[in-house]
Amino acid sequence: MRSLVSEVWSITWKVGRDDPRRVIHSLKVGLALCIVSLLFLLEPLFAGIGKNAIWAVMTVVVVLEFTAGATLCKGLNRALGTLCAGSLAFLVEFVANESGQVIRAVFIGIAVFLIGSFATYLRFFPYVKKNYDYGVLIFILTFNLITVSSYRVENVLNIARERSFMIAIGCGICLLMSLLVFPNWSGEDLHNSAVFKLESLATSIEACVKQYFQDMEINGDQSSKDYICKGYKSVLDSKSADETLALYASWEPSYSRHFRRKFPWKQYVRLGDALRHFGYTAVALHGCLQSEIQAPRFIRATFRSPCTRVAEEVKKVLIELASSIRHRRRFSQSFLSDNLNEALQDLNKTFKSQPRLLIGSYYAHEPNNAAEPNEPTDQNQRKESESLTSLSSNKIVGSTVAIKPVGEAQLKLSERRALRPTLSKIAITGLEFSEALPFAAFASSLVEMVARLEIVIEEVEELGRVANFKELSPDMEIVVHDVGVRHRREVEIPNLSSQGVE
Amino acid sequence: MRSLVSEVWSITWKVGRDDPRRVIHSLKVGLALCIVSLLFLLEPLFAGIGKNAIWAVMTVVVVLEFTAGATLCKGLNRALGTLCAGSLAFLVEFVANESGQVIRAVFIGIAVFLIGSFATYLRFFPYVKKNYDYGVLIFILTFNLITVSSYRVENVLNIARERSFMIAIGCGICLLMSLLVFPNWSGEDLHNSAVFKLESLATSIEACVKQYFQDMEINGDQSSKDYICKGYKSVLDSKSADETLALYASWEPSYSRHFRRKFPWKQYVRLGDALRHFGYTAVALHGCLQSEIQAPRFIRATFRSPCTRVAEEVKKVLIELASSIRHRRRFSQSFLSDNLNEALQDLNKTFKSQPRLLIGSYYAHEPNNAAEPNEPTDQNQRKESESLTSLSSNKIVGSTVAIKPVGEAQLKLSERRALRPTLSKIAITGLEFSEALPFAAFASSLVEMVARLEIVIEEVEELGRVANFKELSPDMEIVVHDVGVRHRREVEIPNLSSQGVE
Repeated sequence: MRSLVSEVWSITWKVGRDDPRRVIHSLKVGLALCIVSLLFLLEPLFAGIGKNAIWAVMTVVVVLEFTAGATLCKGLNRALGTLCAGSLAFLVEFVANESGQVIRAVFIGIAVFLIGSFATYLRFFPYVKKNYDYGVLIFILTFNLITVSSYRVENVLNIARERSFMIAIGCGICLLMSLLVFPNWSGEDLHNSAVFKLESLATSIEACVKQYFQDMEINGDQSSKDYICKGYKSVLDSKSADETLALYASWEPSYSRHFRRKFPWKQYVRLGDALRHFGYTAVALHGCLQSEIQAPRFIRATFRSPCTRVAEEVKKVLIELASSIRHRRRFSQSFLSDNLNEALQDLNKTFKSQPRLLIGSYYAHEPNNAAEPNEPTDQNQRKESESLTSLSSNKIVGSTVAIKPVGEAQLKLSERRALRPTLSKIAITGLEFSEALPFAAFASSLVEMVARLEIVIEEVEELGRVANFKELSPDMEIVVHDVGVRHRREVEIPNLSSQGVE
Repeated sequence: MRSLVSEVWSITWKVGRDDPRRVIHSLKVGLALCIVSLLFLLEPLFAGIGKNAIWAVMTVVVVLEFTAGATLCKGLNRALGTLCAGSLAFLVEFVANESGQVIRAVFIGIAVFLIGSFATYLRFFPYVKKNYDYGVLIFILTFNLITVSSYRVENVLNIARERSFMIAIGCGICLLMSLLVFPNWSGEDLHNSAVFKLESLATSIEACVKQYFQDMEINGDQSSKDYICKGYKSVLDSKSADETLALYASWEPSYSRHFRRKFPWKQYVRLGDALRHFGYTAVALHGCLQSEIQAPRFIRATFRSPCTRVAEEVKKVLIELASSIRHRRRFSQSFLSDNLNEALQDLNKTFKSQPRLLIGSYYAHEPNNAAEPNEPTDQNQRKESESLTSLSSNKIVGSTVAIKPVGEAQLKLSERRALRPTLSKIAITGLEFSEALPFAAFASSLVEMVARLEIVIEEVEELGRVANFKELSPDMEIVVHDVGVRHRREVEIPNLSSQGVE
């Protein structure tokens, strides 16, 4: 019992600490409900309005959302849906009014069926679904309420007018609370999430490359692997969160002095696409880390310095891009690509100067090239000498460790794998391939990454252009590394909250 | 005007053709609304119920969703929220009842504020957010309605009881319609989407490898590239759709004879994770296709047959996995891994028998190895001889074509790139790297793909175990290829509809 209480308390605390805006939003909702309750509680107000005030209460509960964009989207949808439904209901009412009681009932029934079916079908249209789903729902609701009520109640026009008025009051309170009292902007969340994504990729790539070359000494611990994974996973899985935020941001007015024109939410979505495209190379890099066949030590030792340098430069570019977006300024283009260029040249030179290394490991497989016992290639040869079909349990366990599971889904697999020798055949065949392959894949992923980085740079530049970020003045000092580290904790918060918006 | 009408009509037609269940669902909603309207339209019913019947109408509109699981989830949430809120409101009412009018108003105001804030904060808890978000919303709504109404209306207990009764009727109609009349099951959507994802990956990989080796003759057209992209994109972006379907499926009763126990939705989510993990290698393969540096013809010609064979086998495994899931049977394990094994051996042998080929292209860069004019390597050498800094416009255009843009986001980029020579430096540096790299990356991705395929196979096997799929009898004939092609069109439909569920 006590442990349950302490656990609930720790979750409560964590939810608030992760994003203090949640606490503020909760208090805002409470306050809005209080205000709308005054319609009931204050005598003069109630006298003027009456029991229809519950529609205002209902509107406040349903419409007030975490961000201003979401509230605007819902509020305007609700208003629009109510308006359309009201007009149509009166048209139906007007037509039905002439006829007798039974015919009228039949007519209303048919109208309810047709309009209900049609509007529901409309909700499947992609465009309607994306922008006006809630509006159509409210349309169906209001149309039905008015139409069926009109059969029993005489002054339905009056009731409808009062309800619309109450809904307008409710929407007004919501808009007031969400736009004026500590507003949360979806656009700002989107902006921060772009910064956060760039920084996650940067740290993920750095950690990945570092670990690849560190592996020589010790086998990296699980926590750092999770860290790498988390970095790019948060980017790869961000699509739907991005799109939701962008949708709400598109409803928001140009909310700050930073954007003179409309908030460039489309460009943020494009940047997100480019980042995901870039992120796939991070997955490929991480795949090399997890691969069963690892390049021999001496290859890695030779290429350690240039590869690390390229990764460092990529990381610097990403951090600088993040920093430029955060501070809403253009990024210093020439400074970045020159350094990156040099690093790539360096890697290229290393490849050219020592082609034998890449080939050497390959030849280690040939029997006439038997290595000394201390050479790392010797180990590989021994592996190879084992027959494919001799499935010693030793080896299966070896392969279990080698394919390192990612994420929760695969964690259980590694336990089960040892029990099923048949399937592991596939994994073991992999061991026979040349050792040149995995390193080539690693280097190739690195080069591919640089090529895709260009696309990211283009999108960020386009963003700077579209959003009127300020030009970089020559006397501005850019401290790339510091900025990245200093802000990391601040940025993580808005991203978590973005899940609260969906 | 006429074009607008025809366009709307074509969209309307497409929405219905993509998933005919949408039409049925729309008619179901219309019918449910008709039935609930009878509470108003039929004299004897209305006499017994009165105006409170609008709550039943409201419930039907809000709760009736596309799939049974979603309807159940919403309906039970609504019922639970109403019940909790009602109890709490009566408690508050009981306490406030003793005091005078003003104190009572203040007490109600404070209660509304506290409960509103607290419940809103609760909605940020991940567990609550995932399962009971709608229930908490209804809790806030009902609590406020009852509490503030009780201040003005005497027989609030009566009203509350009638409303609960109406909401129960509404929920009952919804459940009846969604469970008994042409029910759509989220679990079935999830099942079909797993089949669809496996098949998309299969076709995507096949097309990718085919095109890689076809490139020798002609440069593949844009449409086939889009096709490849679409195949794996649909898998990579399926995370949120999967999770929504799984959530709803978890609310559904064990709906069919196929699953004796509870629907194994968790295992489908795990399979989805494994498929995404597998899909990243498809992205890496596709990246090799789009890469700026392409392996020389003679390398590709040599490895064409073994690589294509591996890809074929991977495709066959995927199609067989899809087919086994579709028909709810175990897959024939040994048959699959043996073939795959042979294909891998083949590739391995090719690598071993012709190591010079892989190295040859690398040496083409060395000046002492000048090739004849007709050799493809000659072309590469010419490229290299151009200085890095001589940014002839020719070359920039060349690089523009070489990095082939993916998706809408990058399409515009290629147009802009020609204008900005500075950044293209990065891309051109890439050209200097060895030609051995890209092919090694391709082969490595292929091997990695096979390794990850094992994880997918494990998950499918686990699914078969958890979901009690029927064992494969020896006399069952498996026509791998045909099944895949025949069912493709049928399967695409449920997947599209899954977007309608979110």
